[in-house]
Amino acid sequence: MKRKHVGRQTVVMERPVYWTGAYSIGCTREKEGPLSPYFDEIAPDARWGEESFEKAEQKFFRTAAEKAIAKAGRHKNEMDFLIGGDLLNQIISASFSARELSIPFFGIYGACSSMAESMTLGSMLVDGGFAEHIICATSSHFATAERQFRMPLELGTPQTPTSQNTATAAGAAVLSRQAQSERDARICAATVGNVVDLGVTDSTNMGAAMAPAAAETILTHLEERGYRPGDYDAIITGDLGTLGSELLLDLSRQCGVELAGVHQDCGVMIYKGMKGMHCGGSGCGCGASTLAGYYWRQLRSGKIHHILFVATGALLSPTSVMQGESIPCIAHAVEIEGGR
Amino acid sequence: MKRKHVGRQTVVMERPVYWTGAYSIGCTREKEGPLSPYFDEIAPDARWGEESFEKAEQKFFRTAAEKAIAKAGRHKNEMDFLIGGDLLNQIISASFSARELSIPFFGIYGACSSMAESMTLGSMLVDGGFAEHIICATSSHFATAERQFRMPLELGTPQTPTSQNTATAAGAAVLSRQAQSERDARICAATVGNVVDLGVTDSTNMGAAMAPAAAETILTHLEERGYRPGDYDAIITGDLGTLGSELLLDLSRQCGVELAGVHQDCGVMIYKGMKGMHCGGSGCGCGASTLAGYYWRQLRSGKIHHILFVATGALLSPTSVMQGESIPCIAHAVEIEGGR
Repeated sequence: MKRKHVGRQTVVMERPVYWTGAYSIGCTREKEGPLSPYFDEIAPDARWGEESFEKAEQKFFRTAAEKAIAKAGRHKNEMDFLIGGDLLNQIISASFSARELSIPFFGIYGACSSMAESMTLGSMLVDGGFAEHIICATSSHFATAERQFRMPLELGTPQTPTSQNTATAAGAAVLSRQAQSERDARICAATVGNVVDLGVTDSTNMGAAMAPAAAETILTHLEERGYRPGDYDAIITGDLGTLGSELLLDLSRQCGVELAGVHQDCGVMIYKGMKGMHCGGSGCGCGASTLAGYYWRQLRSGKIHHILFVATGALLSPTSVMQGESIPCIAHAVEIEGGR
Repeated sequence: MKRKHVGRQTVVMERPVYWTGAYSIGCTREKEGPLSPYFDEIAPDARWGEESFEKAEQKFFRTAAEKAIAKAGRHKNEMDFLIGGDLLNQIISASFSARELSIPFFGIYGACSSMAESMTLGSMLVDGGFAEHIICATSSHFATAERQFRMPLELGTPQTPTSQNTATAAGAAVLSRQAQSERDARICAATVGNVVDLGVTDSTNMGAAMAPAAAETILTHLEERGYRPGDYDAIITGDLGTLGSELLLDLSRQCGVELAGVHQDCGVMIYKGMKGMHCGGSGCGCGASTLAGYYWRQLRSGKIHHILFVATGALLSPTSVMQGESIPCIAHAVEIEGGR
């Protein structure tokens, strides 16, 4: 058997795990941004016909999962496992969706790193011989996140300049043991994150809190895989935003690695040029929908060939913040190669 | 390669995954119960020298993980992954412990099913060749759970007769590719749960909500593995409590399977004979500490040889309850064989 654990944090798949289906959903704000043409679907509004924002978020999650399965040409009964999570307490978007989908379910929590955590676990279970197909999904919703983590929307509390706007979005990916098409991209390797905490306590500045975790995971990945940044067409962070992205470049430079030119950030891209978005987008759905929407299409069309998707998560809770704790963060990286 | 996916929900390990270390911590109430001699450690009180109950719960989690690793004769740097979660919002007990432990971390959320979810994922990653050693851990705490899910303790709200007492406890297990001793038990198979929801909306009657999920997973496991209940020395649910256990036996009987005699429940056992405990214990720590304490010792001493550990989780949140949703539940089952 080929050695599958390389260095401390990186695992390499023995045979490629194919990315056979993807689906990406945004909402009205995401429609105004430059990635608008790359979503598979845009919800008409944040309620999407549901009684509550929480139920709407479940609809985002469930729809993304169902339609990614359909795009892979499969039926939900062919999915061996659903691996997913979201930002809400007790990951209710994922759990309630799992109830409707009836697929054996692993609930995960990695805050905004959830899509990379899900795809990392999913790839290992497929490569390990435990599954033919796995559906990975995650979602976030501006209104449910504000209600839970910040202030009631009705108060109209001003946002700080370092804040980021939680994307109302979901992304899903089907991972398979066999390719469905020669255009299917492949998961080759993944780097599992350590929790990193440099002592940031400002919960309205998540980009700054998460940048060190992103830097640690990216530098570890490059070292353990023996790559330079230029070996990638894009090293894509989930949602560091403009400030966090600058910090990531600075931190990497201090370690002798230049990421400028190759680094892209879903949080920066999703609302680029839009007013009132401060440092950009955030939320599990931001990175997941950009990966399953924009990057899926770039890989399939052959415009890019080799990417590292690095989703970062801030593992704080309102309780931990109120108790004066700093913000522990994590980043998982998934290495993806285009088909053909 | 041996076929690893048997039926819809069950996976079978190609080679045994060894359970090489375990550690179990309880607190004052757990000390009064009949399982008292089987805990590795009893915390002196619910604060355990910390500023808050939440920080105390982190200490339970972290200590259980650290000492299970030591009991396996290993160092934390030898652990490839930490897989764990807890009941608190954003699983802060697990995440903050991961920060201190510095082990590449997968955060999971399965409510009280977390220990079985963690061991299922961990076994597959070891068998799949991605890890030599994995540490699985989970915790719960009466005071943090009451604060988050129910009423402030200071109000002295009476509990309903169907309620269960969240255990202040933690359990941890090291899973390894190689045995450390001929007495090490082995994980042979696991059955991954579907989310089951029969419409129970009473969040003070979790046993009733979770019993159908337990029944579904146990019956599926027996069918997919081709076993009868009598092939096990014990089929152990995590925390159905007295009422939920009765319902499990009834539901199974309706499907023609008699579990009486072989079924045991950690929630019933942990506070047996104690006053004011209503339907018994609950919380991730209840099943995890009973498995890592009592059952670990029974397996190692050869008193029992073949068990099915079925941890059940109620995937509700206070928000979903307030929005009138019923309680989706899940149960994962881990099949364990004693050493020698």
